[in-house]
Amino acid sequence: MTDFETHPDRYVHWKLSVEGAVATLKMDVAEDRPHRAGYRLKLNSYDLGVDIELADAVQRLRFEHPEVKVVVVTSAKSNIFCAGANIMMLSTSSHPFKVNFCKFTNDTRCSIEDASAHSGQRWIAAVNGTSSGGGYELALACDDIVLVDDGNSAVSLPEVPLLGVLPGTGGLTRLVDKRKVRRDLADVFSTVAEGCKAKRALEWRLVDAHFPRSKFAQAVADRAAKAAAELPEKKDKGVSLLPLEPQVTPERISYRHVTLDIDEAQRLATLTVRGPETAPPASAEAARQLGSDLWSLRAMRELDDALCRLRFDCEPIGLVLLKTVGDIDRVLAWSDFLAAHGDDWFLKEVRLYTARTLRRLDGMAKSLFAIIEPGSCFAGELLEAALACDRTYMLNDESKPTFIAIGALSGGMLPMSNGLTRLESRFLADPGRAERMARERGKLDAEAAFGAGLITVAPDEIDWEDDVRLAIEERLSLSPDALTGMEASLRFAGPEAMDSKIYGRLSAWQNWIFTRPNATGESGALKLYGQPDRPKFDWRRT
Amino acid sequence: MTDFETHPDRYVHWKLSVEGAVATLKMDVAEDRPHRAGYRLKLNSYDLGVDIELADAVQRLRFEHPEVKVVVVTSAKSNIFCAGANIMMLSTSSHPFKVNFCKFTNDTRCSIEDASAHSGQRWIAAVNGTSSGGGYELALACDDIVLVDDGNSAVSLPEVPLLGVLPGTGGLTRLVDKRKVRRDLADVFSTVAEGCKAKRALEWRLVDAHFPRSKFAQAVADRAAKAAAELPEKKDKGVSLLPLEPQVTPERISYRHVTLDIDEAQRLATLTVRGPETAPPASAEAARQLGSDLWSLRAMRELDDALCRLRFDCEPIGLVLLKTVGDIDRVLAWSDFLAAHGDDWFLKEVRLYTARTLRRLDGMAKSLFAIIEPGSCFAGELLEAALACDRTYMLNDESKPTFIAIGALSGGMLPMSNGLTRLESRFLADPGRAERMARERGKLDAEAAFGAGLITVAPDEIDWEDDVRLAIEERLSLSPDALTGMEASLRFAGPEAMDSKIYGRLSAWQNWIFTRPNATGESGALKLYGQPDRPKFDWRRT
Repeated sequence: MTDFETHPDRYVHWKLSVEGAVATLKMDVAEDRPHRAGYRLKLNSYDLGVDIELADAVQRLRFEHPEVKVVVVTSAKSNIFCAGANIMMLSTSSHPFKVNFCKFTNDTRCSIEDASAHSGQRWIAAVNGTSSGGGYELALACDDIVLVDDGNSAVSLPEVPLLGVLPGTGGLTRLVDKRKVRRDLADVFSTVAEGCKAKRALEWRLVDAHFPRSKFAQAVADRAAKAAAELPEKKDKGVSLLPLEPQVTPERISYRHVTLDIDEAQRLATLTVRGPETAPPASAEAARQLGSDLWSLRAMRELDDALCRLRFDCEPIGLVLLKTVGDIDRVLAWSDFLAAHGDDWFLKEVRLYTARTLRRLDGMAKSLFAIIEPGSCFAGELLEAALACDRTYMLNDESKPTFIAIGALSGGMLPMSNGLTRLESRFLADPGRAERMARERGKLDAEAAFGAGLITVAPDEIDWEDDVRLAIEERLSLSPDALTGMEASLRFAGPEAMDSKIYGRLSAWQNWIFTRPNATGESGALKLYGQPDRPKFDWRRT
Repeated sequence: MTDFETHPDRYVHWKLSVEGAVATLKMDVAEDRPHRAGYRLKLNSYDLGVDIELADAVQRLRFEHPEVKVVVVTSAKSNIFCAGANIMMLSTSSHPFKVNFCKFTNDTRCSIEDASAHSGQRWIAAVNGTSSGGGYELALACDDIVLVDDGNSAVSLPEVPLLGVLPGTGGLTRLVDKRKVRRDLADVFSTVAEGCKAKRALEWRLVDAHFPRSKFAQAVADRAAKAAAELPEKKDKGVSLLPLEPQVTPERISYRHVTLDIDEAQRLATLTVRGPETAPPASAEAARQLGSDLWSLRAMRELDDALCRLRFDCEPIGLVLLKTVGDIDRVLAWSDFLAAHGDDWFLKEVRLYTARTLRRLDGMAKSLFAIIEPGSCFAGELLEAALACDRTYMLNDESKPTFIAIGALSGGMLPMSNGLTRLESRFLADPGRAERMARERGKLDAEAAFGAGLITVAPDEIDWEDDVRLAIEERLSLSPDALTGMEASLRFAGPEAMDSKIYGRLSAWQNWIFTRPNATGESGALKLYGQPDRPKFDWRRT
């Protein structure tokens, strides 16, 4: 099983240091410490292990170092910033792993942009050497890209010309959508393996500034100091993210508030979230005292960890049943407590983390059914989790009343990647309805929930077991590929944002290209990279 | 070579009749007349030949029957409206053909919606029998879907459960984005092979009305009459679309104003558009007199035809060079004439047709380079064609002055599928610039065009030949799959509309699924459809 937990004390590939308002993240990949055997991480190239550490650093900077306003990402190697994802690793990985690897690194890049957008952080990529492929994509996720002008260092996206695949972590979309590079220049840039050096890179908007090597460190320090001075004051003391330490067996991963049951033979997993056992804290200060033991944070970190494990370690699982157990009124109280304290930095971070975790759920390439039974507590953020599912089944039995509850968080505090709330996304046909429901909130039994359109099916006690069982069996009989494409299309109706374009559109093209013999066949470009043979292409364009 | 030209007199599969303001398009597919041998078109299933006739009918209704306000699409068979794309045809087609077939049928559906949005037409799908897959997707392209309620007829999208692929013609996107069907209901609908009959179909917004068989014909007639009465008056007399009759050899397709040169060995095509030889007509009336001989219309019809042939009949072609020959001032005058007469129904239709053809160009899965040399005439809509290209090369030689010219059409009359103008798409970083250029227009030499960011490279006479040759050679050496994905990502920056979501996102997922063994492998669902064996899936979700 993949371990997604780490800590700066144990980082193998990164060095995190914090000085006042400025943090520095130095990439120093240990060539001989790959995530799995079989390749060497040369030239600051990365694999899942490297990105798990980066994701951890992004997370901890927000919670443990709220005083940080500027994060400088740079390299500890000389002459190389980052060579991108390790090609040997990619070319020897299975298709599902490649897809999930790209998705995970995308999530990390989006979490950097989320910190920049919402947590008063400015990210500076101090590109102190050549930065290619995923290396430049990492820089693209930052707000400010500074390139060393030494007559040699360049930024590049060599995937198309060298590997016959796309940049896998949002590079093409960020080029034209985020940095607004002119599309024909982006075309030239993305087909020239050697990329662009400082002067042209600046002209083409690929970087924001360049400096000679002799002045580089000082220029970066000056930019960091200037950015820190311009951003609002941050004086808060951080909250440590303590380890989750789940108990892991092949059939079950048990956390404090979350359990993931894995039935590999049936290809079915059940994800159960338990509600809090106490009333919400009396104040934001009291919540901060609880730190990472706060139910709202701990439960989301556990859910997030379980989702990552589902992606990487449970490939055959086709359907995830989402269940909750707990006191629904209490969950609602906790949820509304979180919503009410958006001005507290810590509770705001917890809320932003909840939003990111729910977006990870939206983006699962697994079918998701919410199962709403007596004793469940689908309220607030847990109701959002149910609304992220492809379908919701709720028992309609007068003798065992079951409820769902809409809380204050559903009104816009937990947006999907396309910017919509899950209620808006659900009621596109009737825009006023989502707004009204979010405003009026309330607790609904099965009849009311069905009438309001919040659940899909509400079988009575006679039909419940058969209906749910048949739905599960039917879902598990369908083509997993067709389901992935279908769910990606139906889950994200309405507008698109950069994130949703990266996940929905770029990933789909990348998935296609990864499966094509021109990339991964015996004579494909990705397969043959680094070998003397030239790739052989089937030239038919489609 | 595929012949995309036809005429209602020669339709094999459709019957077009016009009575006053109401046209009826009856689908009556001839089972024994498939587009190629090897399958029978049972149950009003369709193939490319059927859709070429439909596309022709949509086009002719706009030009030849401007009096038509309502188009009723229905079936001449009893109990079946349309069974969708022929499965036997799909399962025995190559990947490039399948992809291009889906794209062509998408173009046809989008042209129906374009007629509805811009030509005062209302399309009614009179679904007088079961409508599945592409049959229901055809209905989804209409404004109004009326289903017969006979206890048997249903609408359905059985692709996921029966074939392991996605509905190939925008069905999933139109479900949630156009008809705003609730996403969980869309999920259920898209996984149930038998679909939904009248009552549930109406409840779930899948159709707009249902009527028993005994009242169906009258109800449809009433709806058509009501819609016709509500739409503004249309009294114009049509313009016949005369045959293009190109001369076709394996190396060259010659039209009056367009030539397509095909160098299959080099995988290079050259598309040359010749400007008009006379001044523009003196008036809209004079333009109508010219009818389909009007340069603006004829040249676009020829270009459109050439693009379709490039897609279906020139699979190995990887790069298309776009050239023009003619008097640039004259092209600009024609272009501005078209822009100035938007209130004339015919010239408006010509302009809308120009916009659709340019969108077909935007969507080519071929690399596109515009080559701007002395004697070329990239003005107005032809400049738009250059702006649709991935790159533009313009000779910068004082002794042979070469110009491009921005006309009035570039200010918003020829939108891309995402709603942007090509200037807006090019200058996303500087939104005022596109607006300013479109307002000020003007004729620019190579220096000025390069300075304005309208061209990519402006080599002088010494470098010209080598630069262009090297760019061509380099492009043709790259993976065709990676280029398709890259171009799809870079060409459509900025916002997304339903069309662009269908082409950019849904098509990408479909492409991926089509290549997967779960669909098209020896034991794939598409491959085994209609045979006794059950598909065998690789269950790993990605």
